[in-house]
Amino acid sequence: MMKQLFTLMAVLVVLVSVSSLYAQSPQWQQVAPGIWKAVIGIPEEYDLLKAAGSKPALAGLEKLPRKGFPLPGEKVTYQLHQGKVALRLPLEKDEQIFGFGLNFQTIFQRGRVIELHVDHYGGKDNGRTHAPVPFYVSDKGYGIFVNTARYLRVWCGAAVRADSPEPPVVRDRNTDKKWSSRPYSDAVEMLIPSKGVEIYVFEGPTMLEAVRRFNLFNGGGCLPPRWGLGFTQRVKSLYTADDVKKEAEAFNQHQFPLDFIGLEPGWQSKAYPCTFEWDCTRYPDPPAFVREMKEQGIHLNLWINPYVSPESPVYETLKPFYGSHTVWCGMVPDVTIPEASKILAGQFLKSQVEIGVSGYKIDEVDGYDHYLWPDMAVFPSGISAEQMRQTYGVWMQKLTTGMFRQRNERTYGLVRASNAGASSLPYVIYNDYYSHEDFITALCNSGFSGILWTPEVRQSKTSEEWLRRMQSVCFSPMAMINAWASGTKPWTYPEVEKEVKAIADLRMALMPYFYSEFAKYHFDGTPPFRAMYLEPGFSMVSEEQKNKAGLNDNPYAEAIRKEIKDQYMAGENLLIAPLFTGQTDRQVILPRGKWYDFYTGAYAGDGEIITVEPGLEHIPVFVKDGALVPMMKPRLRAPKAGEKVDLEIRHYGTKNGTYELYDDDGETFDYENGAYAWRKLKVERLQNGKSKTSISPAEIGKPDHIGNVTWIEMTGRP
Amino acid sequence: MMKQLFTLMAVLVVLVSVSSLYAQSPQWQQVAPGIWKAVIGIPEEYDLLKAAGSKPALAGLEKLPRKGFPLPGEKVTYQLHQGKVALRLPLEKDEQIFGFGLNFQTIFQRGRVIELHVDHYGGKDNGRTHAPVPFYVSDKGYGIFVNTARYLRVWCGAAVRADSPEPPVVRDRNTDKKWSSRPYSDAVEMLIPSKGVEIYVFEGPTMLEAVRRFNLFNGGGCLPPRWGLGFTQRVKSLYTADDVKKEAEAFNQHQFPLDFIGLEPGWQSKAYPCTFEWDCTRYPDPPAFVREMKEQGIHLNLWINPYVSPESPVYETLKPFYGSHTVWCGMVPDVTIPEASKILAGQFLKSQVEIGVSGYKIDEVDGYDHYLWPDMAVFPSGISAEQMRQTYGVWMQKLTTGMFRQRNERTYGLVRASNAGASSLPYVIYNDYYSHEDFITALCNSGFSGILWTPEVRQSKTSEEWLRRMQSVCFSPMAMINAWASGTKPWTYPEVEKEVKAIADLRMALMPYFYSEFAKYHFDGTPPFRAMYLEPGFSMVSEEQKNKAGLNDNPYAEAIRKEIKDQYMAGENLLIAPLFTGQTDRQVILPRGKWYDFYTGAYAGDGEIITVEPGLEHIPVFVKDGALVPMMKPRLRAPKAGEKVDLEIRHYGTKNGTYELYDDDGETFDYENGAYAWRKLKVERLQNGKSKTSISPAEIGKPDHIGNVTWIEMTGRP
Repeated sequence: MMKQLFTLMAVLVVLVSVSSLYAQSPQWQQVAPGIWKAVIGIPEEYDLLKAAGSKPALAGLEKLPRKGFPLPGEKVTYQLHQGKVALRLPLEKDEQIFGFGLNFQTIFQRGRVIELHVDHYGGKDNGRTHAPVPFYVSDKGYGIFVNTARYLRVWCGAAVRADSPEPPVVRDRNTDKKWSSRPYSDAVEMLIPSKGVEIYVFEGPTMLEAVRRFNLFNGGGCLPPRWGLGFTQRVKSLYTADDVKKEAEAFNQHQFPLDFIGLEPGWQSKAYPCTFEWDCTRYPDPPAFVREMKEQGIHLNLWINPYVSPESPVYETLKPFYGSHTVWCGMVPDVTIPEASKILAGQFLKSQVEIGVSGYKIDEVDGYDHYLWPDMAVFPSGISAEQMRQTYGVWMQKLTTGMFRQRNERTYGLVRASNAGASSLPYVIYNDYYSHEDFITALCNSGFSGILWTPEVRQSKTSEEWLRRMQSVCFSPMAMINAWASGTKPWTYPEVEKEVKAIADLRMALMPYFYSEFAKYHFDGTPPFRAMYLEPGFSMVSEEQKNKAGLNDNPYAEAIRKEIKDQYMAGENLLIAPLFTGQTDRQVILPRGKWYDFYTGAYAGDGEIITVEPGLEHIPVFVKDGALVPMMKPRLRAPKAGEKVDLEIRHYGTKNGTYELYDDDGETFDYENGAYAWRKLKVERLQNGKSKTSISPAEIGKPDHIGNVTWIEMTGRP
Repeated sequence: MMKQLFTLMAVLVVLVSVSSLYAQSPQWQQVAPGIWKAVIGIPEEYDLLKAAGSKPALAGLEKLPRKGFPLPGEKVTYQLHQGKVALRLPLEKDEQIFGFGLNFQTIFQRGRVIELHVDHYGGKDNGRTHAPVPFYVSDKGYGIFVNTARYLRVWCGAAVRADSPEPPVVRDRNTDKKWSSRPYSDAVEMLIPSKGVEIYVFEGPTMLEAVRRFNLFNGGGCLPPRWGLGFTQRVKSLYTADDVKKEAEAFNQHQFPLDFIGLEPGWQSKAYPCTFEWDCTRYPDPPAFVREMKEQGIHLNLWINPYVSPESPVYETLKPFYGSHTVWCGMVPDVTIPEASKILAGQFLKSQVEIGVSGYKIDEVDGYDHYLWPDMAVFPSGISAEQMRQTYGVWMQKLTTGMFRQRNERTYGLVRASNAGASSLPYVIYNDYYSHEDFITALCNSGFSGILWTPEVRQSKTSEEWLRRMQSVCFSPMAMINAWASGTKPWTYPEVEKEVKAIADLRMALMPYFYSEFAKYHFDGTPPFRAMYLEPGFSMVSEEQKNKAGLNDNPYAEAIRKEIKDQYMAGENLLIAPLFTGQTDRQVILPRGKWYDFYTGAYAGDGEIITVEPGLEHIPVFVKDGALVPMMKPRLRAPKAGEKVDLEIRHYGTKNGTYELYDDDGETFDYENGAYAWRKLKVERLQNGKSKTSISPAEIGKPDHIGNVTWIEMTGRP
């Protein structure tokens, strides 16, 4: 043994030259306006963009401002070593980094070490999350995307090279109070476990524009059907058709909005693993049931996880396409193979979509390690288990979206896993975690990575918590109660029933605004829900705070960072500052420019920190100076295609305002062929204290759902 | 983009045959008695055994009982796929798995998914720990070791193959209450990210024998110097030579045992990164200081972390050997290169060892990701950052042990990271975590993996906690207060000073017993501290308990497992059942056979669960029927080489008893050349109620430290 060791030693003493290994810089090639690609080594056949299969939205990209390649290209370097790519991207001293997908606790990514790995969220931001998108943006105004479907390790301003151009100061911990366990690092470094990889750079000039470019490169954001922005209730797992009908009646009785109902596993004859067939005892006549719901204007969304029960009608035909391992005893179809995908979609179409079902909730495509297929699983396509895990959620989104697209019907659903390239797929991510605070942080972060997130409401310990959660979910991509286990209803907490109804009504009233904001997501790439850091005029508050714990509890004297993650932007004009259980007041940071209270129009502040005490009934919402907010009367269902809707357009503050109001049929993909309209809303303040309002006329041959228009000046006067 | 996608699809439809991939079984070759090796694919040049460089202790191996290859060999299968090895080992229905290194919360490893990755312990058993040893034992009586220095993913009875020979029952969660989120799995599966790997099988017939084989294969367990089993105090970081002398005086005044003192970073002129030079203001005359301490019988242990400060005298000479990245601004010497190792050892020798320093505490060789070199770091030997991380702690143990071995002096130190192959290196693992309960679980687990662990005491919220922690650390491989940050002394909590002294005195009194038990670790491979599950007659209590949380908090209805991890064996005869803060009584599970109270000799029970209420002053300790426990009078320092020591030998219970008492000089490696003795102690119960006692005579030319012998019958009578 010792002899072997010495032989080994002799071999090892052929020293590797450590410093020369980073000598190479990649070659950049512009592939779309403001987007550059570099190919390092020999990239794999399969990657995130190929999995998502989206097509860049060039029209949107061409409209964005241009300044040129945003990085010192020669400072981007890489190294190929032991079959892996090590990549190094420079950071400036005061640069901050955002993104890397659906983080729940951190906004600032500089200083973090993560492995981007599709997984359920385990309570710590370590890269294992439902959408670990390998894309980041810098406040210096650019974005970086690494197109790999491998588990990717990132040291984001956390590793320090010995030959670093901007080295940290060496300090003696014995005597120097400035010693830090996190010495300054001047680079993002990544390790990609493959022989090559494609890297993309997105120019700004601002962070928001880099994000918009990323979304547009991935096809532009999704545009949900109008009904997708209404209220949705997911009923208890074993509800029968009659139970569901009664639930819908109860919503009517309570005059509570309801656009779609989600059926949980019990709609299927067997579930976990799934048959993808209706259970005939609970649902004796599915076509009649679906039709009846639809006649009431209620769409249906069905829970599935894509793992096939031996009793499923497609079990046999899918046999050549299963992976080597099962998930909860279900076979895992290799949906990257078109024939497998077709068989599965065929079942969904025949049994559900063709009788009128409107969408799916795709569960357990994320993890966790105990539930999903293991990393040594093998799939018939030859795609590795790891790559399959990074992209399975995207494939299922694509498969289901494709079915509805064939029928020229839009869908809007839920999914537990996503990744880069999927911005255009109409799915909202959810999970089993339930920290209200962290749910809001996730909402902030979703906007950096081309994903949508819902802080769904399940049940609460108190009526206060119920109301606070309802208030924030109504300012999110999907206003939902998920009562699969609890059976809660919006009115389950009678003390706050009125306030809960008020917030759901407000959600409905804001539909013209939210629908327009989603259209901007689609056409311009602007995320409808996003962190304050993407808002112009928002000052970076990035100071480190001293940790008061002593060395026994905090042996490396780690500092605490202050991040703003409890308020966010909802569309162009609204700043949302939720309250959490136990809070009666809170601080709100208003970006530069005048801001006004949404409910009263009263002046709130300008580039400052204010304290608000909104009472239980309100979630604090602030509006930009001059902003127009198009609203409608609250209603129980979203407007249908062709239905005229009266608008109430609110104008806030003292500035003149304009707003681009989007319109289309709200149901089909005809907007992709030009069947849509942007209507310009305008308010000019006149010297006599009055205002001049205008709306651009409807174009001939374009959709026009606008009925009477009322203009409301939110003056702050009672 | 879509075109590309379809091209890709066409390529992918060359289906991989999923089921045939596991067709291969490895070829087994016996490499030592009861130990088989298989070579799969092309293993890497560098692995755990090469890093540790230990030599199998054949003499010990030859003494173990033999039955033959312990597994159905044809059921062990592997697959080479995408440059990785997937390995599958069968599990029987009622089989339980233990090991995988230093886990802090779990004992049963079946059902777990982990990545074995050297790291600090982050509060969850996920494979990231200080010693993630890729070795497990089965209660069916065999052990498996995977000799890789890569990060290794393990699904231990957690993954389910579609073609599994013992598949789980498919259940419908909608209707079947027996549905489980953890379906039955009949195999351990591992993914090793390298083109080949060596696998070792260790036969039993019992688990303990499989563990012994593993330890003997790695050179046998370490044998500390006698003083290493005494009490040790680590003083405050910036203590001066005078402060240390005063501390030693205070120990004398309190008549508190003290064999070695640990100096924390402040002994060095600069630390974090380190100069490896004495600070001349705090230590103006190191040789005199070390000599003075030694004259009092006090050994010194010095803190280091192996990262080189620019101000170290070896900074320049080590330059050709640094890795690409720094740790806390310190250069990382590639100690796998003999010349680098020699330069570093040269500095330790010249400045410290040659003036009489006795050992080291090697810090921060574990992680965490923010502190250590990143995975893309490059080292001049060409060994990858990942492999370096898995083995750096082992290399530093080897380097320092080697220095002392050259001088024929034993050492005993502390280290933050270890791995397989290092059983024979005289280091105890410690960390920054501080859950007393989890520290005891770690102590239980250490025995499965050939490592030692100390539940060090730092400070406590209450005197009760202080005492309870002191009681358990005195029944561990290193009886230590680590006051580097707190400055605590044994008598810091005056309410319990008497009890704390009593337990330290007991530790000293038990030195003949503990020293013999460590000799058995060395010669027989028997871990001195180990889980109850390794004890014959201990019944498996493995029932699953229903989790009372509802589906909202526990959506997948995860069960809770009952594991025994709060009591453990200390050597052959003692069962330790620590109490934790807030407990006044506790349950103890006694294995089959009669057990007696250590303090009184009273009968305690037989194969049953008892409840004990020991008061504050005692940690419950139970002794086997017939057991002999060799003790000495409490003293402040360990006996020196050549010093005769009177023995008190306790006999418990009703059975006749024998015990193998080990003796050598306690200081050098001469025992490796035969300079040791096993003395047989014997008690026979006579019919007249008396006993006949005997001790085998000392052999001529062998060490003999035994003075007068007193035999004490622990009858349980007052």
